[in-house]
Amino acid sequence: MSNSAKRVAMVIAPNYEDIEATDPKEALEQAGAEVTLVGIEKGEVKGKKGGSLEATETFDTVTPDDFDMLVIPGGGAPENLRIDDGAVAFTRQFTESGKPVAAICHGAQLLISADVLQNRKLTAVNKIRDDVKNAGGNYVDEELVVDGNLITSRTPKDLPAFNEAIVAAMTERAVVGQAD
Amino acid sequence: MSNSAKRVAMVIAPNYEDIEATDPKEALEQAGAEVTLVGIEKGEVKGKKGGSLEATETFDTVTPDDFDMLVIPGGGAPENLRIDDGAVAFTRQFTESGKPVAAICHGAQLLISADVLQNRKLTAVNKIRDDVKNAGGNYVDEELVVDGNLITSRTPKDLPAFNEAIVAAMTERAVVGQAD
Repeated sequence: MSNSAKRVAMVIAPNYEDIEATDPKEALEQAGAEVTLVGIEKGEVKGKKGGSLEATETFDTVTPDDFDMLVIPGGGAPENLRIDDGAVAFTRQFTESGKPVAAICHGAQLLISADVLQNRKLTAVNKIRDDVKNAGGNYVDEELVVDGNLITSRTPKDLPAFNEAIVAAMTERAVVGQAD
Repeated sequence: MSNSAKRVAMVIAPNYEDIEATDPKEALEQAGAEVTLVGIEKGEVKGKKGGSLEATETFDTVTPDDFDMLVIPGGGAPENLRIDDGAVAFTRQFTESGKPVAAICHGAQLLISADVLQNRKLTAVNKIRDDVKNAGGNYVDEELVVDGNLITSRTPKDLPAFNEAIVAAMTERAVVGQAD
């Protein structure tokens, strides 16, 4: 796949927190990235606040190799994704690949089920802090945490910092990609 | 407090799954129990599906000693309760007291934060199964699980079995209470 250095997978499922999907998507696209919505099924997916997005790929049609970054919005979507074997395997492989993985709010629930938080420093909405800790993560209450390839924020109000960090990570990947 | 053998505490917070509160409440009341809604604040609490209930007590105004059983409905309420120190302490003390504790759906999230699931067999909505396991619980996918004083079910469709079990536990407590 050409131009893979600028391809971002955003995982999506019913009840996603609208702005945690649309806002990072817009920021990444404005920075020149191509954002692909990957879902459990192809087609329209409804957000928690009434919006909708279209999943154009599923976990059967793509692999982590197709992308340079993974973004996990919050809301009720991560709960739906974390019980899907394909979504969990995709997330685990992506995180273990070392490429940037960004999760906001409840997004970390998918990382918990992918079993990739052992000894990682991260943040998330405080409602799941105990689950993050029980999964072996080092939970901190900060607007943005970058630990290796893991980029995390807590809630929609952290979106400015979150967007800046994922665009920066994307740009670094693009530069690395060009140097290959 | 008189007649404590028939008093049930139902913990409640915004975004509770309506039927998981109202249905067990009705079943318990029909069986002769007095159900007290305990919240983070007193007053009207809105459900996820548009209903509302009134919290008449808070975690500052009651103790586990005031009740014979604890019921934890699901929805988004447990997420709100689990970050409240009073709710967590109340739940921990109640569970450790040996008196019946019943949780349905996301209700187990409050039990996770109360740190009372180590080596306990239970069920919950599958969306939080990994969190239950990481908290040391033995998660099983059954409509009703009774392990010692812990009574759990998965979703609203398990309510008939759940209600039957909590009414039975309540009746046993009442009988024990009368024999005191």
